Amino acid sequence: MSYFTKQYHPPGTPPGTLTERPVTQAGELKISLIDYSPGELIEKQLASAKECQPFLKAPSVTWIHIQGQPAPQNLQELARIFELHPLALEDVLNTGQRPKVESYDSQLFVIASLPVMRDGKVLTEQISIFANKDYIISFHQGVSDPFELIRKRLRIQAGKIRSRGTDYLLYCLLDIIIDEGFPVLESFGEVVEILEEELLQAPGKETLRKLHEVKRELLFLRRMLWPQRDLLNKLIRDEDEFLNEETLFYLRDCYDHTVHIMDLLDTYREMTTSMMDVYLTSISYRLNDVMRVLTIIATIFIPLTFIVGVYGMNFSTNSSSPWAMPELNWYYGYPLLWLIMVIIAGGMILFFRRKGWF
Amino acid sequence: MSYFTKQYHPPGTPPGTLTERPVTQAGELKISLIDYSPGELIEKQLASAKECQPFLKAPSVTWIHIQGQPAPQNLQELARIFELHPLALEDVLNTGQRPKVESYDSQLFVIASLPVMRDGKVLTEQISIFANKDYIISFHQGVSDPFELIRKRLRIQAGKIRSRGTDYLLYCLLDIIIDEGFPVLESFGEVVEILEEELLQAPGKETLRKLHEVKRELLFLRRMLWPQRDLLNKLIRDEDEFLNEETLFYLRDCYDHTVHIMDLLDTYREMTTSMMDVYLTSISYRLNDVMRVLTIIATIFIPLTFIVGVYGMNFSTNSSSPWAMPELNWYYGYPLLWLIMVIIAGGMILFFRRKGWF
Amino acid sequence: MSYFTKQYHPPGTPPGTLTERPVTQAGELKISLIDYSPGELIEKQLASAKECQPFLKAPSVTWIHIQGQPAPQNLQELARIFELHPLALEDVLNTGQRPKVESYDSQLFVIASLPVMRDGKVLTEQISIFANKDYIISFHQGVSDPFELIRKRLRIQAGKIRSRGTDYLLYCLLDIIIDEGFPVLESFGEVVEILEEELLQAPGKETLRKLHEVKRELLFLRRMLWPQRDLLNKLIRDEDEFLNEETLFYLRDCYDHTVHIMDLLDTYREMTTSMMDVYLTSISYRLNDVMRVLTIIATIFIPLTFIVGVYGMNFSTNSSSPWAMPELNWYYGYPLLWLIMVIIAGGMILFFRRKGWF
Amino acid sequence: MSYFTKQYHPPGTPPGTLTERPVTQAGELKISLIDYSPGELIEKQLASAKECQPFLKAPSVTWIHIQGQPAPQNLQELARIFELHPLALEDVLNTGQRPKVESYDSQLFVIASLPVMRDGKVLTEQISIFANKDYIISFHQGVSDPFELIRKRLRIQAGKIRSRGTDYLLYCLLDIIIDEGFPVLESFGEVVEILEEELLQAPGKETLRKLHEVKRELLFLRRMLWPQRDLLNKLIRDEDEFLNEETLFYLRDCYDHTVHIMDLLDTYREMTTSMMDVYLTSISYRLNDVMRVLTIIATIFIPLTFIVGVYGMNFSTNSSSPWAMPELNWYYGYPLLWLIMVIIAGGMILFFRRKGWF
Amino acid sequence: MSYFTKQYHPPGTPPGTLTERPVTQAGELKISLIDYSPGELIEKQLASAKECQPFLKAPSVTWIHIQGQPAPQNLQELARIFELHPLALEDVLNTGQRPKVESYDSQLFVIASLPVMRDGKVLTEQISIFANKDYIISFHQGVSDPFELIRKRLRIQAGKIRSRGTDYLLYCLLDIIIDEGFPVLESFGEVVEILEEELLQAPGKETLRKLHEVKRELLFLRRMLWPQRDLLNKLIRDEDEFLNEETLFYLRDCYDHTVHIMDLLDTYREMTTSMMDVYLTSISYRLNDVMRVLTIIATIFIPLTFIVGVYGMNFSTNSSSPWAMPELNWYYGYPLLWLIMVIIAGGMILFFRRKGWF
Repeated sequence: MSYFTKQYHPPGTPPGTLTERPVTQAGELKISLIDYSPGELIEKQLASAKECQPFLKAPSVTWIHIQGQPAPQNLQELARIFELHPLALEDVLNTGQRPKVESYDSQLFVIASLPVMRDGKVLTEQISIFANKDYIISFHQGVSDPFELIRKRLRIQAGKIRSRGTDYLLYCLLDIIIDEGFPVLESFGEVVEILEEELLQAPGKETLRKLHEVKRELLFLRRMLWPQRDLLNKLIRDEDEFLNEETLFYLRDCYDHTVHIMDLLDTYREMTTSMMDVYLTSISYRLNDVMRVLTIIATIFIPLTFIVGVYGMNFSTNSSSPWAMPELNWYYGYPLLWLIMVIIAGGMILFFRRKGWF
Repeated sequence: MSYFTKQYHPPGTPPGTLTERPVTQAGELKISLIDYSPGELIEKQLASAKECQPFLKAPSVTWIHIQGQPAPQNLQELARIFELHPLALEDVLNTGQRPKVESYDSQLFVIASLPVMRDGKVLTEQISIFANKDYIISFHQGVSDPFELIRKRLRIQAGKIRSRGTDYLLYCLLDIIIDEGFPVLESFGEVVEILEEELLQAPGKETLRKLHEVKRELLFLRRMLWPQRDLLNKLIRDEDEFLNEETLFYLRDCYDHTVHIMDLLDTYREMTTSMMDVYLTSISYRLNDVMRVLTIIATIFIPLTFIVGVYGMNFSTNSSSPWAMPELNWYYGYPLLWLIMVIIAGGMILFFRRKGWF
Repeated sequence: MSYFTKQYHPPGTPPGTLTERPVTQAGELKISLIDYSPGELIEKQLASAKECQPFLKAPSVTWIHIQGQPAPQNLQELARIFELHPLALEDVLNTGQRPKVESYDSQLFVIASLPVMRDGKVLTEQISIFANKDYIISFHQGVSDPFELIRKRLRIQAGKIRSRGTDYLLYCLLDIIIDEGFPVLESFGEVVEILEEELLQAPGKETLRKLHEVKRELLFLRRMLWPQRDLLNKLIRDEDEFLNEETLFYLRDCYDHTVHIMDLLDTYREMTTSMMDVYLTSISYRLNDVMRVLTIIATIFIPLTFIVGVYGMNFSTNSSSPWAMPELNWYYGYPLLWLIMVIIAGGMILFFRRKGWF
Repeated sequence: MSYFTKQYHPPGTPPGTLTERPVTQAGELKISLIDYSPGELIEKQLASAKECQPFLKAPSVTWIHIQGQPAPQNLQELARIFELHPLALEDVLNTGQRPKVESYDSQLFVIASLPVMRDGKVLTEQISIFANKDYIISFHQGVSDPFELIRKRLRIQAGKIRSRGTDYLLYCLLDIIIDEGFPVLESFGEVVEILEEELLQAPGKETLRKLHEVKRELLFLRRMLWPQRDLLNKLIRDEDEFLNEETLFYLRDCYDHTVHIMDLLDTYREMTTSMMDVYLTSISYRLNDVMRVLTIIATIFIPLTFIVGVYGMNFSTNSSSPWAMPELNWYYGYPLLWLIMVIIAGGMILFFRRKGWF
Repeated sequence: MSYFTKQYHPPGTPPGTLTERPVTQAGELKISLIDYSPGELIEKQLASAKECQPFLKAPSVTWIHIQGQPAPQNLQELARIFELHPLALEDVLNTGQRPKVESYDSQLFVIASLPVMRDGKVLTEQISIFANKDYIISFHQGVSDPFELIRKRLRIQAGKIRSRGTDYLLYCLLDIIIDEGFPVLESFGEVVEILEEELLQAPGKETLRKLHEVKRELLFLRRMLWPQRDLLNKLIRDEDEFLNEETLFYLRDCYDHTVHIMDLLDTYREMTTSMMDVYLTSISYRLNDVMRVLTIIATIFIPLTFIVGVYGMNFSTNSSSPWAMPELNWYYGYPLLWLIMVIIAGGMILFFRRKGWF
């Protein structure tokens, strides 16, 4: 995962420029249209943006979802039909934007971050939504369509969603995007708990790398999800005309979820910071352990080795001087030496015991 | 204790869906009704939610408490009778929600966190309350009913609580939930103090684990109790119509308690953070101690061992060269060597003394 | 000092219950009354709260100070006479409350924290004040009366305090409580400076304990004094009717003092945090020192000891093979060996010099 | 890079004094004028500020850009012609100012920070802009003109920029200044990622220096770019009369970019802080490794060396006492000793295995 | 430098009491008066405060500056003439106050902190100013008069300052006080940079002490300068009647300078905190280095020393058993042993190489 994930034009490019991006993710472009009213539902795959025009006039709710990376010309076509603002279009193409809500004259423009877990790594994918009281246009440049479940709910005629307007559909889309945070955080929670156990049992070098990685991913996730809280807050507070009061209740519930997700992210973050301290302390503690063993062994045997070294000297072999190591000739010299050495070793052991070293 | 404690529906589930949760805690479902006015008190165990209907019309205060995990159909029955909002019902079932207050058309919906100490571990249990000026419905999915004391006070006809409305009862419920924080924090305080003593006296490996655990529990508790402050603040500020002005005084007192609890939690948290530093420093200090002993012993004896090693060499045994260790033949060679060694050892000791090592 | 210092009723106790607390601090209960107007001053020790009734009607300022722990029945008597709110009374008895100001219908209720230095430890004692434009009732459950100085100033007829109302008296009481923070912080400042010196000169084990203690006391003091700032702010902002505009000037001065005290506390706190880092770093630095000495000595003598060990082997004693340590028979073998050893030692010393180790 | 980069007059200098600064960066002074309307464009290099007067009256947009360090007399000339405020002029000369926006009677004065990467180091260059609905005067004291791209866009008659007023030009200038942050941060992101890899693989002394440097540059960049956020916020909120509503849309986009940049800077900063911890921990871990090897080797061989030392003593050589090392005369003495030594070594190894040391 | 620098009365002293302070700084009291209008300027040294009375009535601007520590009676005289508030007077005498602005009925009272560098240490000196539209009275208890430069500017008849009122003079005084922060911070910046270099090159014990000192001084400076920001903000926002609108422009510039100073202080503070981490890490890194050398040497020679110790045993000398060290009698025993030892040493070196230890 790279730290810098924003796509941007070189500084100085005129605002609203749409550059063709290299297609990074496989997955062909799919434009799907759903047009529904309480009594009727039309589902269609569009080959080109132009085909949606007939549905616009109808009083029914029209939802166009563009899955995959749209070509600039496709976007411009859409822009012409729906009067999309060039700055908004630029943000749709340059993924990696901060989540935000912007109200242009004729529509609301929302950018949201969909957290995704892929190969044990956390990513976020940008979802861009244009909404007004007649239609919703959503863009998602990832591989798998996150809104399939909503389509299923739409197909059921009795569903509550069929009897409501675009505002409720907007809520449904946002709800799904935000709630995707929960399974991601749940699996994060598990990773953190496993690391914690590893840390206190047997901290290895890999633990440090994993800990750092988790911290990094949390930081990344926080950066991408934090603005979603402001986004919802702004939606609720500004009370855009086309948002029905009942829908505001639902959006408020959504807002509570973003707050809950931030709470969890912050808890994890504080926990990993504390775990880094635990790691360092735990390593220092082990070093203490290692050094204590060395010190006890060395401190007992180094003086004894000196003593036996003394009686390995060759003074008496060469000289007959009575001062030349007379101890060697004592009758009980050797056992006496052992006695002295045992006393020294015992004294050392007592000393370490009283210091509480073992 | 797990980090992730929220129950949630898979993303994309229609809002207001009520799934049957596996019953995690033993304890059968009990629906108890109390209906009181200054002069009269009726207490009843209900078999089904329907039985409470006759009490609703009466001008008396009706309090229905559901202890244990309600089945979705039971909830739906309640929802029909009391016109509960589906989003609220979903939050009642999916425990682990953030504390909050929501005002729907006909009632106030409050979610609160009851801190509980079980087997030396801190948990929080969700309590959900629907309140309006006619009735209060409370849900608690834990084992033991926390409101037994209020029932006792209600049974006494002279009690102040009997002469007041549902708003005062709501305060009583919240007061008990919040004040449960004090004994929990008191026992936390004791744990922290014991750890502190352990830390400064004899920091062991277990101390680190316990310290980390305490930090973790404080973090968890903070996350669950913090929003309660906002909850009370909102209750007081919004001055919902059915809250009597006198009751606001009492709620203000409640609010002060939540602030006090946050103060204590933050003090403990800062203290445990500081204790982690003390731990690390204290271990480094001990390492210093250990290394000083090793260094003193080694530095004194290693040169001496070298010297006695020199006179253990066999040059003179084999060669008659006058250059071959003539010292061995000196008359006072051996005592002279001892003298030199004592001087070296003494010099070392003096050196360490001046360095202040012992 | 204990972390948890709040006294509380078991959760579920009806609000306003007054339990008799065990008398923790020696010091009998004293009720003293001062009733003054610019021209007259009556001072009296009361045996019971009832005796103050005659003074209430008079237009003079009546100040009743209750020193020591009042019995619940005494409080109830006072409550009846002065119409004190039961929640306020509960807070008077359960000391350890957060400082706050509450305005009830007929009076202002203030809880403040008086910092006290006892046996080198910081404590705070709760002072509770009821005030309206006719009287002031103050409670202090500590041993020594902090307001003696005000009484002295009251006895002087010419004093400014005599010509003013209860609002100025309230200011005088608060001023004394807040200003007691300065000498406490001054002595704290000295302790911190002494610790700092100790830390940089000769950090010992005791230093760590003292440092931790100071940090803990600062945290405690901050928790108890911080709300006093809000208290004064609220007093000034709300401009309670009985607070004269001139008195607001004085309260503003008081507020500045609380801000100054918070500034000092925060400075000390940041300083102690930095000192913990200095401690750890300083210990690591010393370890480095210790290890360098060990390494230099060991690295010089261990190879030399090996060499002399080589020539202590008994190959030549037993075998006559020309390959059996012929060096021992060389004419200049022994001095040559010394030469080699001196060169090795010198090389090592040069190596350490170039590494900058000594 | 120096920490203190602000140029200031000695305290006490009258406000608005213009001192000649030593020219620190090569690059001669260039005054270029562009005067455009939808239909016409005049581009001119001016020798002196006076030459721009004829263009001022025209209803077209006049943009004067001063590249390089202007002499005080030049500035004063400009000041006279355009009625620039002396305090603003002082800020133009004393570069290193905080970004800000100031509205004087007749114009808006903006100071912005242009981040520049030079020789792998981050710098910021001050750009000062005076704007009102008739003209824009911009100053930049760096070497290369950052606005060349805008000039190119202006020369194209069809460009949107030609048909708009000074407010849109102001937006274009600010947009380029802010967007220059993205490539700088992108290259920062790469440096951080490389350091991170180095840190976990093979942390060396250079890594520490580089890490510290990155932290320092991030701090510096944050200090210089942070106020730009307030600048844009103020521009949008104050809605200066000459800012067209459509331009506010564009400025809002600009504001989003500053927020995004701050998000990235904060992420990097938190990351580098965490990396310092990882570094320290990783070094401690390696120390552990080193010490474990030493301890294992020393603990195994030190006792063995003592044992062989014992049998190197000369007791039996000199004395015929039966107590004098009789072991030496045992038939299987030598192999027995080896057996004992192997058992000791084996025991040690088993002990270390069970401690999990290797 | 002491942490606690506030002078205060013992708690309980009546507000407005003026105690004579011991004169801590040499420097006699000087009262200088300047009375100016665009056309005229009178400068006078006053012996007593009374002498200024005649100048008060005149429509000219009167500026009285009291340099040095005034005696309480002098102050009381001033207080009578200018109707100074007793609380303000108390703050003038008890230096070490927090910077603040207070508006009394007839005048504005400002306390500011002048940062001063003396003997390489940072101090702040209190400057107290009373101002209204007729006069300015300033107090400074330091040695050298900081306002000499303003006097010089006043003496020049053409200066802008002469044609303006007391509000502009007030700005000039504040501007000089605040701008004194820049040279102080510049020299701080140099100290920090030198320390940084020292830290990365050769961190010694002195570095730690210096680092701690810098941190401490920054903390102190921040505490004394931070409130100056609020002071200016309040001056600008409250728009006191006697502050001319043009002067507000200048004060806004002053405010920008305080913000800039705070930015710098915070940058330095974060830098020193990071430097403490660098210090610790750098020391740990060196310890690693030291230990690696020791471990390599010890690990190579300790086993070798054991081996040569084996062949120093006296088994063969005493016993003729064929099991008694037959190796000693082998024809190529000695060179074989060397071969083995070289192989062992080589193996160790290879092992360390592969571990990347050298």
